[in-house]
Parts: sequence; structure tokens; C-alpha cells
Amino acid sequence: MKKMQYAVIGLGRFGSSLAKELMSLGYEVLGIDKREANVDDMSGVLTHSVQADWNDEDVYRSLGIRNFDCVVIAISEDIQASILAAILCKEQGVKKVVAKAMSDLHGRVLEKIGVERVIFPERDMGVRVAHLLASPSLLDYIELSNHYTIAELAVPSRISGKTLRELNSREKFGCTIVAINKPGEVIVSPSAEDRVYEKDVMVLIGTNQMIERFEQAIH
Amino acid sequence: MKKMQYAVIGLGRFGSSLAKELMSLGYEVLGIDKREANVDDMSGVLTHSVQADWNDEDVYRSLGIRNFDCVVIAISEDIQASILAAILCKEQGVKKVVAKAMSDLHGRVLEKIGVERVIFPERDMGVRVAHLLASPSLLDYIELSNHYTIAELAVPSRISGKTLRELNSREKFGCTIVAINKPGEVIVSPSAEDRVYEKDVMVLIGTNQMIERFEQAIH
Amino acid sequence: MKKMQYAVIGLGRFGSSLAKELMSLGYEVLGIDKREANVDDMSGVLTHSVQADWNDEDVYRSLGIRNFDCVVIAISEDIQASILAAILCKEQGVKKVVAKAMSDLHGRVLEKIGVERVIFPERDMGVRVAHLLASPSLLDYIELSNHYTIAELAVPSRISGKTLRELNSREKFGCTIVAINKPGEVIVSPSAEDRVYEKDVMVLIGTNQMIERFEQAIH
Amino acid sequence: MKKMQYAVIGLGRFGSSLAKELMSLGYEVLGIDKREANVDDMSGVLTHSVQADWNDEDVYRSLGIRNFDCVVIAISEDIQASILAAILCKEQGVKKVVAKAMSDLHGRVLEKIGVERVIFPERDMGVRVAHLLASPSLLDYIELSNHYTIAELAVPSRISGKTLRELNSREKFGCTIVAINKPGEVIVSPSAEDRVYEKDVMVLIGTNQMIERFEQAIH
Amino acid sequence: MKKMQYAVIGLGRFGSSLAKELMSLGYEVLGIDKREANVDDMSGVLTHSVQADWNDEDVYRSLGIRNFDCVVIAISEDIQASILAAILCKEQGVKKVVAKAMSDLHGRVLEKIGVERVIFPERDMGVRVAHLLASPSLLDYIELSNHYTIAELAVPSRISGKTLRELNSREKFGCTIVAINKPGEVIVSPSAEDRVYEKDVMVLIGTNQMIERFEQAIH
Amino acid sequence: MKKMQYAVIGLGRFGSSLAKELMSLGYEVLGIDKREANVDDMSGVLTHSVQADWNDEDVYRSLGIRNFDCVVIAISEDIQASILAAILCKEQGVKKVVAKAMSDLHGRVLEKIGVERVIFPERDMGVRVAHLLASPSLLDYIELSNHYTIAELAVPSRISGKTLRELNSREKFGCTIVAINKPGEVIVSPSAEDRVYEKDVMVLIGTNQMIERFEQAIH
Amino acid sequence: MKKMQYAVIGLGRFGSSLAKELMSLGYEVLGIDKREANVDDMSGVLTHSVQADWNDEDVYRSLGIRNFDCVVIAISEDIQASILAAILCKEQGVKKVVAKAMSDLHGRVLEKIGVERVIFPERDMGVRVAHLLASPSLLDYIELSNHYTIAELAVPSRISGKTLRELNSREKFGCTIVAINKPGEVIVSPSAEDRVYEKDVMVLIGTNQMIERFEQAIH
Amino acid sequence: MKKMQYAVIGLGRFGSSLAKELMSLGYEVLGIDKREANVDDMSGVLTHSVQADWNDEDVYRSLGIRNFDCVVIAISEDIQASILAAILCKEQGVKKVVAKAMSDLHGRVLEKIGVERVIFPERDMGVRVAHLLASPSLLDYIELSNHYTIAELAVPSRISGKTLRELNSREKFGCTIVAINKPGEVIVSPSAEDRVYEKDVMVLIGTNQMIERFEQAIH
Repeated sequence: MKKMQYAVIGLGRFGSSLAKELMSLGYEVLGIDKREANVDDMSGVLTHSVQADWNDEDVYRSLGIRNFDCVVIAISEDIQASILAAILCKEQGVKKVVAKAMSDLHGRVLEKIGVERVIFPERDMGVRVAHLLASPSLLDYIELSNHYTIAELAVPSRISGKTLRELNSREKFGCTIVAINKPGEVIVSPSAEDRVYEKDVMVLIGTNQMIERFEQAIH
Repeated sequence: MKKMQYAVIGLGRFGSSLAKELMSLGYEVLGIDKREANVDDMSGVLTHSVQADWNDEDVYRSLGIRNFDCVVIAISEDIQASILAAILCKEQGVKKVVAKAMSDLHGRVLEKIGVERVIFPERDMGVRVAHLLASPSLLDYIELSNHYTIAELAVPSRISGKTLRELNSREKFGCTIVAINKPGEVIVSPSAEDRVYEKDVMVLIGTNQMIERFEQAIH
Repeated sequence: MKKMQYAVIGLGRFGSSLAKELMSLGYEVLGIDKREANVDDMSGVLTHSVQADWNDEDVYRSLGIRNFDCVVIAISEDIQASILAAILCKEQGVKKVVAKAMSDLHGRVLEKIGVERVIFPERDMGVRVAHLLASPSLLDYIELSNHYTIAELAVPSRISGKTLRELNSREKFGCTIVAINKPGEVIVSPSAEDRVYEKDVMVLIGTNQMIERFEQAIH
Repeated sequence: MKKMQYAVIGLGRFGSSLAKELMSLGYEVLGIDKREANVDDMSGVLTHSVQADWNDEDVYRSLGIRNFDCVVIAISEDIQASILAAILCKEQGVKKVVAKAMSDLHGRVLEKIGVERVIFPERDMGVRVAHLLASPSLLDYIELSNHYTIAELAVPSRISGKTLRELNSREKFGCTIVAINKPGEVIVSPSAEDRVYEKDVMVLIGTNQMIERFEQAIH
Repeated sequence: MKKMQYAVIGLGRFGSSLAKELMSLGYEVLGIDKREANVDDMSGVLTHSVQADWNDEDVYRSLGIRNFDCVVIAISEDIQASILAAILCKEQGVKKVVAKAMSDLHGRVLEKIGVERVIFPERDMGVRVAHLLASPSLLDYIELSNHYTIAELAVPSRISGKTLRELNSREKFGCTIVAINKPGEVIVSPSAEDRVYEKDVMVLIGTNQMIERFEQAIH
Repeated sequence: MKKMQYAVIGLGRFGSSLAKELMSLGYEVLGIDKREANVDDMSGVLTHSVQADWNDEDVYRSLGIRNFDCVVIAISEDIQASILAAILCKEQGVKKVVAKAMSDLHGRVLEKIGVERVIFPERDMGVRVAHLLASPSLLDYIELSNHYTIAELAVPSRISGKTLRELNSREKFGCTIVAINKPGEVIVSPSAEDRVYEKDVMVLIGTNQMIERFEQAIH
Repeated sequence: MKKMQYAVIGLGRFGSSLAKELMSLGYEVLGIDKREANVDDMSGVLTHSVQADWNDEDVYRSLGIRNFDCVVIAISEDIQASILAAILCKEQGVKKVVAKAMSDLHGRVLEKIGVERVIFPERDMGVRVAHLLASPSLLDYIELSNHYTIAELAVPSRISGKTLRELNSREKFGCTIVAINKPGEVIVSPSAEDRVYEKDVMVLIGTNQMIERFEQAIH
Repeated sequence: MKKMQYAVIGLGRFGSSLAKELMSLGYEVLGIDKREANVDDMSGVLTHSVQADWNDEDVYRSLGIRNFDCVVIAISEDIQASILAAILCKEQGVKKVVAKAMSDLHGRVLEKIGVERVIFPERDMGVRVAHLLASPSLLDYIELSNHYTIAELAVPSRISGKTLRELNSREKFGCTIVAINKPGEVIVSPSAEDRVYEKDVMVLIGTNQMIERFEQAIH
């Protein structure tokens, strides 16, 4: 099976990190930037890295951009360049264009142009970090719809050694512990007799309110 | 109980998003930026927003920065300002300083200075987006340690209507479906007879390899 | 009947000329520019002229941009501003948005955004001036489809005093003289006995080739 | 017969469009610009394109500027360069110099220097676009003297299928339909029995007022 | 009798010196500059000094520039501003416009515009200083036509005390001593018995060659 | 006899004019400027012209600046460079250094450093032009000490054909006509019967007041 | 007795440190800088601090600079400003002007202008720090003439407790220990029986070579 | 014995002076600067001088920075570069890092990073110069702890020829003359009968107050 091929336009902090991670996931990645330093940093790291004017139609044609499975436009601090790169990619026939937006307005333009997915990394990361800061034991989380969240909570020393039955999260708070991440092993769907210790991490599912109250109770 | 008080220094895309989310979580937030436009955008949104030179020791003193529970340094594109703000906060006695780093080297300086937590939003977001792009149905995920991941997978049309028993994810692939997010309801710890339909989202726990293979099998 | 209301965004050479002509045609015109000098030049000339940031959503809302019959985006030398103004106008519900494009690529973005009409003043004027320069007597012209053109030709001294019959443009060259513009009067559908004199201007219809050959013959 | 030779100084949006149109009309065109990118864009498109300092007397001499039939000075955004280029061309003995003016004052200087024709593309285009916007069916027009205009009007659906007799434009409004542009054919001097259909375009001659009233009547 | 009125546009080193000298000669002088510092330096020194945009037609109108007997355009380092100021003055009907040119080309444009007198202060001063440097005793000179010069020569110690007869400048060299400038008195048309002493200055008339040879002889 | 050798540092308008005039007077001239364009303009015109950093001690040493008879520092718009060049020349042992000053203060520094002669070309030229403008017939002049001036006056038509006796300048006004410059000849020490005609130029000696009154009388 | 009065022109790192130290030594100090921030930092610290253009002759006059006992010109990074300030001070009659030089050439100009003392802080400090780095125990030193130095050496642990007789510095190395700085006391002209301990500091006089050899011997 | 090896990062006024002095003391010195001109000035002067980006980790690795005995960070006017260079040196394992600080805050960051010694050359030099200016005869001094100072005082003419006994510095003022620096010789520990003459320099030890009083007494 042919490997997926990605092109990442814009190799700043976000773009280069994304490109490197795609490499480490086993894909082919072409990196494009107009700044030589950024291209140099990625040379030898990505499958190819090219210095080129990212608003020149001929560049896209000669690189065969239409043959890439997905193009990520990760240009920073230049809304015009981002928009023009997006329309060039769409017009060349790229099936999946993902673009980073600098503002709501920018995002709306990208959508009009036909970009498949608009992302707001700084805004999303701001939200995510806010949640992690706000809770003393929250390590990570996924927001499901209808207010449900999957949360990864550190086990505080106060409840170290307790069984799940003792914690009784489902009856008292409504949230279910679906896994315990212990040093060296992960217990999925733990039983009521399983115990949690400091250093363990509990994975819970529940509404935000349920999890918040559970968290307050164990501290 | 007294509300937690946060100060966010730097109200760019990341800082302002973080500050607003902290507000919506019910905390008091002071925003500081040296650019008037950024401060204006946050006025009326945050508890207080102040235009001030963020490298002036007197500013921190007169704002009583030491009394805040947590200070987030979210200054962008100015490493020197970030470092100087960090040392001023630590010297004033702030207990918890969280700072955004622009590069590894910057991050290492922040740690030496005694910052409690260094974050790399663009880098982390690059990694996260890479994973979401790489998989056709992955919606979100949390990385647990020892290669385990909690993944949120969209149900592809091919398996719509199947029971969990038919999918048999645990026996065949080793990964457990710990929840199904259906329109209007979330089924936690679903039974083997529960069915998944297109539009549903499955929450799985497993190693990256298990989840990847399961995902390939259902497509 | 209510007068048509226009808003012209960007009061440079093109925009201000357009706005003033709309005024002289009897319409109400609101001029918007972010440069104070340009706004000052139009104050007292247009119905209203306002200095405002043309990429600020609130500006459009407070000016009630949605109530204008037509908005012309005449921003020069700033593609990004032009695009953002265009999307703001369309999102506010303006029925007819006309926008000046700086390049093909820019024009294509404007169309994607939903702009009703994209114009390229410099490019079109370049074409028009080329035609006028290329012909010794051509004063103005309209291009009809299928190679037909309406041309306004000065009468050269060589044929001064001749009747249309003598010129015999239709039989010999295929093109018809549909009007003669004489000092003080315009003869529409002139007869074969009408004479043309120097200073008169003939209006012809024909293909480019017919008109060109006729022009060469009379010189 | 020797082909006419043009030189176009300044290859921006206006100049490059003009130069290309002159080429397509079959003339020889030399393009001069001091910006390398503009020259590169025209290389292979014009007979010659040269990068040179357009205010250096020696450049004009070595290019033999005096031998060109017509020189168009299409320099944008640099009034001084435009004036100096104009005087150099006149002093070298160029017979016909045409120059683009950025403002009235600029135009007056150009005339004093002896330029044969001064053009104001943005201003003229602003006027033209204003007229086209102001009328619902006007497609193009030529202004004759004494308030007479030749107008190209789209046929509105309301009158589709009518004969010219029924429209009776001459008796009721004073304006004459001198041609009908139909898909695939142009009827010059149509008869009273000719019919107009939607998609057809009528060419009329009349005063502005006549045409305006006719236009209102058919809508 | 009404005093002559001058306007000096541009109050740099040349313009301010000229304006001050005109004041000291007893005229009324209006100084105009767009730079506040230059205007401030002349306030209290000239009859009036005004800060204004020297390329704004309204400025000239409101200052009543047409009523001045002579306008000197002494703008430095901005050829465009100089040209536009010149045409505005001529169009307003100023009878005598004198303008400083930065280059030959600039000078030729000014002449075309109708400026009465074009001056090249730096170039002329360069020539003048060259002559003064080249000769050991030349103090000042006026060039008459046909190679005749009036020269002011310091008396070298070698000939101190000699009579004009002894110097015999007319017979031996062809040049006439028309005056002797002595400390406290000027002897016009001196007699053959008048003596010259060190510190005296002789005023001679002769061709360049005559004066040069006389100068060499007395050293 | 060895030709005098000059070095001119700074080849702007003043410096290049001075250097060229020295060449035409028969001297050897080395031109130095740090701007390539200025040096190119003088190549082939001066004995040598060199592009070099005029504040680098080694440059002066390797050019053997000490061997020049006179060095003129004609640097414009950079007071610091002018001062440093001056001290380098004096320290290298140049006997005669002449320097152009931009301001009084600058001039005083140059004198302290030991520069032999400080000149103020723009200021001096401003004074000179003021005098020429102020008088209707003054063509040129030299200021002698004690208010005496040698003036070159055009002969106005009103007195054309008169003898010197009729003009009677000495008795009535105190000033002496020492020469008459006629087309093709110069009459030195003219007699009372010599006549002046329009186009002739009179050379007078007298106090400023005498000459002014004479001038008014003949107009 | 009247207190000495100093003026310090330029309140950067060097100037402000110098000014503050003069204050702490009990003098009156006027600080002058053209940058508002620098002046603000010194307000309340110095007797007076004034924001003013340090190249404006009037400033010096109105501040009565001639009445100060000593003026220190500590302007950084602007050689021209430093030179002009120096000449203004000297011309106003300041008796003692001390100026910081940025380079040798700059220093030579300052001397020519008549500055009493030229200092090179960065250069001198570079030399001093080099010496302190080069020696393991050298704490500070004064260079006397003829290679003699007074050095302050830390006592290394190896010789802790030894008497001066045992060290025998004079006989064996030629250098004399003229003082021992002990915690809480300084022994001047110590006797041969005095002992040195770690933490003590010896003050020696000798040639560089003597001290170096002694230092090597005790390590 | 292997020579000490130093690296000096930043070759401005301070850094280059320090590096050259270390060379003259017999050490090996590597100079690093990112500005080519600074590196060129030191080539041939230092053991090696290298142009390199001083914030690039690879530069330090390839230069083997860890092998140097001491690294001096003498970067001026760029706090960020100074901090990053410091952490890179410490992380590479350099034992002794000395860094120049631009401000207190900067100095505190450098200390946190683990720099062995922070120096403030401008500030220290400001203090030192203040002392030298404040005293009429003080030539140099070392501050010992507990208010003791070693001072080098010029002998004023008033006491020329006196014996130390007559001066009686120890009894009357408490300070000891430990050396007399005479032209051509240095007398260490002078006897009571030794005489001081003008041009001699006395080296004293005493408290600041003692020395100050002694100084006032001898003037």
C-alpha cells in the first residue's frame, strides 16, 4: 500500500512540529517555507524540504501539489499568504486542505475558499491549558459532546490505597472510572476491588460537574 | 472559599484564549499586556485588564503580583521579555508561574529561573493535529504512559448497526470500548449487545498499535 | 422612490473617482477609508465620509452596511484588507458587493467569498488604452461579442466632405456607420447623402477586421 | 510596411496589461522596468523586456528610445520618476509620449513638459464603473459629445420577444436601437420587425436622459 | 513705495540663508517649510514663517502666493516636491519664480514648467571654491564673458611697497588694476604712483590667462 | 614644475563640481567617496576616483593622503564623518585641509581640529542669490571690505546709447564705472565719451548705497 | 564651603552610575539626557535631571552650564552628539570637561577640542577584568608605573596559618606585603610574625613578574 | 604546563579589549562574534577569531566550548542573546562562565542560570570614575572591605620636599604611606626620612575618611 503523502506549508513552531510528528508516524512529508532558515532546520528531518515562494502558482504546479493526499497550511502571521496558498491548493485540485487560522475572520475566509478543515492552535491550546491549570489533579482530558468529558486525574495522596468501591465514584458522583494507569501497566475497566495509589492515574467519564465534584471530594 | 486568582501576562491569541477560558471556569483573571489594542479587546471580558510594561519591576509590585495564586506568562515572539517577566514573578514570590516557551532553549532558561511549568503550545498542538490528520476517524485522544492511548473514534458507515460483540475489539485487537457517545446520550461501559451507528463516537483504550489495527479493520 | 445608496470602501484614486461619479449621477454615497487624508478630501463631496478601520466587524455593524444597496470595495495595495472587507460585507448580508482585484489570484479569492462582481481597473484600462494608441483615429470603442466592435473614429482630413455613399463602408468593408457626431448635433442612422467633415466623428459597427481595413483605407 | 514600435516604461498592472495588448494587436513592444520581478514576468511575452534605471539618460540613449514610434510612461506611485522619464523621452526626440498621471497636478506637469497625451486610468475607470453600477442593464457605453451616449443594454426578461416596433424607442424616448447583438450574430441597423430576446444586447444611441428613461420603462 | 515681497519655500541651509539676507536687505519675506523645526528657527527672523504642506494647492491660495513679487523654491533633496511647488506657483500667476535644482535633469524640468530662473547653488559654489583654492592669492572673482574676469588678489609680501608703475601690470601682463582695497579705504582707479602693501587687496580686470601670469610673477 | 595635487573627499553635488573644476584648471585630483554611484560618475573624469570608507585610517595611509597639496572634505549630511575625516587628514600631516561645514557648530569643531579653511557653501550661496534677486540689473558682485562692492550691472534700455559723462555716476552717485563688457570686447577704464548700450554690462565700484542709488536712477 | 557641582550629560549605564556615585559622595549633580526614560529613572535620585536636546546651544546657556565645576559627557553610541556637546561646553567656558570616548579616533577629536580628560570605560574595564580572570587569587589591583603593581590577593587554603616570615615574600620573590585585610580589621604594615588565614586578603607591592611568581608559589 | 584557554563571546569595545589583554598576558583566546567587522578586527590579534551565530547550540559543540577553561560572555545590547549564550555554555559543561550584565535584572537571570561571575563594566566604571573626579589628587584606588581603601595620590606642589615624618600621616590622620612611586623607582615601605616631591605618587592605606582628610590637609 502506498504511504500517505503530506505537504506542510509553513515550517514555524506549529508547522515544523506537525511535520515532524507526521514523519514519526511513518508518512512522507514535504515541507515548504519561504524562509531559508526554517527550511534548513527541517532538511534531513522531512522527506523533502523546499524553499519557495508560497504564493507563486508555478511553485505548486512544479511540486505537483495536487498529488499530495493532504496539504496543511501552517503559515503564521501572514493572513494574506495563508489565504492565497489555500486557494492555490484548492484550485490545483488538492482533496484535503487543512489550514491554521489567525482569527475568526481569517477562519471564515478559509472556509469560504473551500478549505476542508480550519484549526486554531493557539486558541484551542489556550482553552486546554486553562482547564489543566484550573484543576489540581487534571492531567489531560477529551471533551465529548453533551457536557461529557473523559478526564485523566492524578490520584491524590489522601485516597492512596483505596478500592474503587470505597471511592464509589459512580454512585456518589455519577462518573465512571474506566481505566487506571499504573506504573508499568494499564488496567482497563477495573473492578470494584482494584485499588488506586499515589502516582496512579485514573481515567474517568462523566459530565464536567460530576468530575469536578468527585475531584473536590478526593482532595 | 476564596476564588482562585490568575494573572495572565501577554494577551495574544494564546494568552487571551486562556484568560477567557479561566473566566468562564469561574476564576478571577487579571490580564496584562503592553499593547493597548490587546488590552482593549479584553476589557469587560476579564476581571481586570491593564496596559503596562511587563518588564518593569514596579508594575508587578503595584499590581500586587505576589498575591495571585498563579501567573501565566504568555508573551509571544519576545524571548527576552518572557525571561525577565518570569524572574520578576519568581522574585516577587509568586508560588506558581507557568510560562509559554518559544523554543527548547527558551524552555531550559525558564526552568533554570524556577518556573513551575513550561508549556510549548505550538509544538504540542502540532503533534496533536498530526495525529488527528493521520487517522481517518480519530476525533481526539489522550496519551497515557506506556504506549496506551484513549481514542475517540467516529463510527464508519461500514460497521453501522453492529453490536460490540460483533466488533469484538477486545479479543481481536486488544482494545476496549469504554464508552459510546450517541446523539443525546453517552453510554459508559457499554454491554456486548450495544450497537454502534454512524454518527456515534466510540471511546477506546488500548495501545497505539491495537487502536491502529482496529481502525484499519473497521474501514 | 428611495434613492439608491452606495458605500465605497477605499477612497484612493479609483475609489474616490467612482464615489464622486456616483454622487453626480444622483445617488447617496458613503465613503470609508482608514487614512484620514483620503477621508478629508471627500468630506463635503460625498453624502458621508468616515474614517474607520475597514477590517473591524463592528464598524460595518454600526454603519449599518447591510442597508446599502451596493458596496464597492476599492481598497488598493492591500489584498488582505480587501478580502476581509469583502467577507465582512457578505456576512452582514450586503446584496451586491463589487470589489477591485489586484491580481488574478486575488480576483479568484473574491469570487469564492461570494463577491457579485470583480473588477480589474488597471488591467482593463491597459487594454483600452492599447487599442486607442494603436489606431490613428480611434477615439473610443465598445467590444461586442463575436468580434464585433462599435468604434468611434475621427474623420481624417483626407475624406472631409465625402458622402457616406462615396465612402461606401458597408459594401467595401462590411461595416456600418450608425451615427455621425458633428459639432452641435448627432445624426443617428445617417443617410447615404450625409457628408462627413474633419472634426466630425463617425460611429461604426463591424468586426475588428472590417473596421481596421476601413480605417486604413480612409487614411 | 514596418511594424509600429512601442516602448512601455513601467510594467505594473496597468503597464503590463497595455504592453501585452499591444503585442496581441501585432506590434513590437519593448518593456522597461527597474524592478526585476516585473521584467521577468514580461520576458517571453514582449518583444524585449529590460531591467534598467528609468531615470538614467544613458539608458534611453543606449536603447535608442528616439527610434520608437510611441513611448508610454506607465510608472506607478513615483511621480518624480514619471516626470524625469517624460522629459528624457521628449529631449531624446520621441515624437509621441503618452504618460499616466497620478493626480491633476502631476498631469499638469506632464503637459508642460510636452507629453502628447496624459491619461488618468484609475480616475477614468472609476467614472466608467460608476455608470455601469448605477444602471441595472447597462453593459458598456461610449460618451459622445453633447450629452449623447452609445449604450449597450441587456434585454430584460420583461420585454423578451417584443419587436422593435413594439418597444418604439425612437418615438417614445428619442433613442435609436442601431444594433442587436444576438448569440452568434450581430444585426446592424435592425428593422422594426426584428425581435429582442433575453440574452440579447441592444445598442442604442441617445442622450443620457433618453436612454435612462427607456431603461426605466423596460424594467 | 511698497516694499518688495518675497516668499521662500524651503528653509534649509540655502533657503534660510537666502531668506535672512533678503530680510537684512530690507524686504518682506515669507518663509514656508513643512518641517516644524525649520519654521521655528526662522520665527521672529522673517516677516512671517509658516509650516505648511508645500505641495497643497490650497496652501498657496490661502497664503495669496500670487501677490508676492518673487517666489524662491529652495526645497532640498526632494525633486518631486520642488517640481510640484514650481508648477503651483506658476499656475497661481506668480510673475517671478526662482528655483534651486538638484541636477541638470531637474533643472530642465523646471525650465519647461516656466520657472524664470534656475540656480544650482552646490554646483556653482563648487566651481567658485575650486578657483579660490587653485590660486594662492585669489580672494574672490567675477567671471565676465569672453574670458575676462575681475579678480580680487591679496598683495603678497614680496611686492609690498611697490608702486603700480613698478608692477606695470598693464604693459607686461595686459591686466588693469582698477581698485586697491586698503585697510579703512578703497582707492578706485588708482594712479601709477599709488603703492600696494601687504594686507592690501588689488582688484584687477583681465583675461584669465593675463591674471594668472600676473599672479605667478608677483609670487 | 610638479602639478598641484588635490584630494576631494565626498563627491556629492558640491564635491564633484569642485573636483571637476580643479581638473579643468589643470590639476591632478583624487576623488574619494564611500558610495559606489558617486565614484562611478567621476571615473574617467578625475585623475583617480576611489570607493573607500572615509573614516578608516588605513585608507588614508594607503592612498598616501599626506602627499597631497590640499585635501577638500566635501562630505554632506554626515557631520561625524566630516569631523573624523578632518582629524585623520590633519594627523597624517596634510598641510592644507579645507572642509565644508553643515552648521556653525560643525564649523567650530572643524576649526578646533585644525582645519585650515572652513566653508559654508549653502549659506554663502544663499547670501549671494539674495543679492542678485534683490536688484533688477545686478548680475554678479564681489564684496570688498568697508561696505565697498564691485558690481556687474546690466544696462537697462532706458539709458541705452548714453555716454558715461551723461550718466555721471561718479559725481552724482559716487561710484566709478571701471569697465564695460560689450559683446565681443571688454573696455577697461572706459573714457567719459564711451557709450553704453542695452546688452552691455557695466562694472562699478562703490559702496552698497552708492550702487543702489545709481541703479534706481537708471531704471 | 560651596559644594562641588557636576553636570552629567548622558544617563545610560555608565553616566547614571557615575552620577549616582557622585551624589553619594556628597556633590550636587545635574543629569541631562534626551531620552525621557533615562531622565525619569534619575528623577529624585540626582539633584536635578532634565530632558533636553544635548546638541542645542540654548540648552546649555539656559542651564548655566558654565557655572558647573565639572561636566562629564557620557553620551553613548553617538559620536557626533558627543563631539558637539564637548565643543558647546568648552565654548561656554566650562573649566573641566571629561568625556567618554567610543574609539581612539573619537578620543583624539575630543582632545583637539580641548576636553580635559578623555576616558575609555569599556576598554579600561576590559583590561581590568582580563587581569582579574587571569589570576586565581587576584581580587583587585592598581598599576603603578615602571611595571610595579599593588595587588590584592586572596589567601589560598594551602598557606592558611603561615607567618609572613614563613612566606618570605620579599626575599624569595621581591614583593612586599604591605597590608592584610582580615575579617573585621586591616593590619597595615604587618610584622613578620603576623599570620595569614584563608578568607584573609594580602595587599602586595611588586613588579608584575614578582607577584605572579609569588602567586604561583603559594598555590 | 598547558596554557589556559579562554573564549570571549562578543567582541565589542569591552570584549575586544578584554580578549587582547588576555593575549598579552600569554593565554590562548578564541574570539566569537556574529558581526563580521568585529571578527575581522581581531583576526591576527587573537589565537582564533570566528564569525558564528552565538545562539546556535551546534556552534558551541563544534567549537568544543566545553574544553575552554573560562568563557567570557561579553555580548552588548542584546540581553536575550547573552542569556541564551550563558545557558548554552553551562549546559555544555563549561566550568567557569563570566558574563557581562546590562542591568540588575539581567544580572539576576545570569546568576539563576548558574553563571560563575556576573560583571557590570559600565556601572563599575561609572563608580570608579566618580571617585577619581571627586578628588583632586586621587589617581587610582582599590576598595578593601570595612571601609579601608588603598589610594594612589599625586603629591601636590604644596608639600613637595617634605619628609614622611613631617607629613605625619599616620599620627594625624590614621593612614599609612606604604609606598612612594618616584620617577624611575618605587620605594616600598618608605622610612620616615624619605621625602616626597611633586610628580611623585604616594600609595596610602586607610579608611575613606582618613584618606579624605589627609588629602584636604595637603592641598
